[in-house]
Amino acid sequence: MGYCMKAVVVLSGGQDSATALAMCVKRHGAENVAAITFAYGQRHALETKYARALAKRIFAIGAWKRVPLSFYSAITDNALLSKDVAIGRKKGAKCPNTVVEGRNAVFLTLASVWAKSLGAKEVWTGVSEADFSGYPDCREAFIRAHEKATRLALDWPVKFVTPFMHMTKADEWALAEKLGILDVIENHTLTCYNGIPGRGCGKCPACRLRNRGYAEYASRRTA
Amino acid sequence: MGYCMKAVVVLSGGQDSATALAMCVKRHGAENVAAITFAYGQRHALETKYARALAKRIFAIGAWKRVPLSFYSAITDNALLSKDVAIGRKKGAKCPNTVVEGRNAVFLTLASVWAKSLGAKEVWTGVSEADFSGYPDCREAFIRAHEKATRLALDWPVKFVTPFMHMTKADEWALAEKLGILDVIENHTLTCYNGIPGRGCGKCPACRLRNRGYAEYASRRTA
Repeated sequence: MGYCMKAVVVLSGGQDSATALAMCVKRHGAENVAAITFAYGQRHALETKYARALAKRIFAIGAWKRVPLSFYSAITDNALLSKDVAIGRKKGAKCPNTVVEGRNAVFLTLASVWAKSLGAKEVWTGVSEADFSGYPDCREAFIRAHEKATRLALDWPVKFVTPFMHMTKADEWALAEKLGILDVIENHTLTCYNGIPGRGCGKCPACRLRNRGYAEYASRRTA
Repeated sequence: MGYCMKAVVVLSGGQDSATALAMCVKRHGAENVAAITFAYGQRHALETKYARALAKRIFAIGAWKRVPLSFYSAITDNALLSKDVAIGRKKGAKCPNTVVEGRNAVFLTLASVWAKSLGAKEVWTGVSEADFSGYPDCREAFIRAHEKATRLALDWPVKFVTPFMHMTKADEWALAEKLGILDVIENHTLTCYNGIPGRGCGKCPACRLRNRGYAEYASRRTA
């Protein structure tokens, strides 16, 4: 490649990763930041467009890459990958069935591979364990264990930066305001599992989490 | 899926994974074993055919899955993914440039995702650190760290079984003979980076390793 970056941000186009991108850009400077977007399943084609706009137009970072992961539907059957399956809790299942098993593990490994080729020692991700969303591969214990394994796998001192690990969605909205990007997060990110931008459908688990967080943030401001 | 397996074997169609498959089948019974083959780059389309034959015809196991990983060429530039790049040691590089960074890490994560869906608690891989082939993600320290991270990521007690971690290629040939599958390994596996089956081109690093191991095994037999 020839040039060097400070960090690679895992960018899905949603609230969390967009806010993480903003923080990373503030820390290192836009030209030193790269972002990687993983595209899987029919439902998230629109999310990629949001990610591209964030990376290229809004934050104008040094590099952006989209990586299709079509194989995921071959490995696991999951609601996120098929428009025909209603999202909801399966009887007897431990996790919400919107979980795409091991997704973050794969994202972090691949982001780290690219990071090494760019000379970047940080991989940023907007995951959080504070909202009890039930994803084992968003938890701190997993992130720390995976960071150790990835450093060994690649022989590269990569560090996984997780600024929102113990932050609620309300905290993230407040942070977005402090960073001066509240409008960007409100109107230029995609969270809704049904593909509706901004405040979304309001009914799916992701919308509820996002909008409840926003309501809590808003009520603090007026308190 | 409805049915339950004991193990998932990562099957590339080469000597190591074919021998691992044979051991796994002997341990658990063919109907309780699944194998997964990852197809990436132009060079290894033929390897997939060998893997399919091993899984379906020769060992007739319970399930076999082929997963295309076309994204790898988007992440990293590497000799294995392009027929035009000569294989050899890059000046100043730490590893042989046949390394596809982090490949095993991704294979093990995805194999584990499938294993969980099959109720399988073992993922077998034929990796070895005994031949100093320079792959950091084939080393025991990495495998152990990745196993821990993967158990956390999937909330599933998966165990990575690595029967050849401290075994040389010569040992593996002797094991193949003991298992009664020497002919299968000699004639029905693909190791050569240039796509030539059996003893291969004899010149690439993989062929040298394989054939040198065979010569050592053969000389022990007559000693």
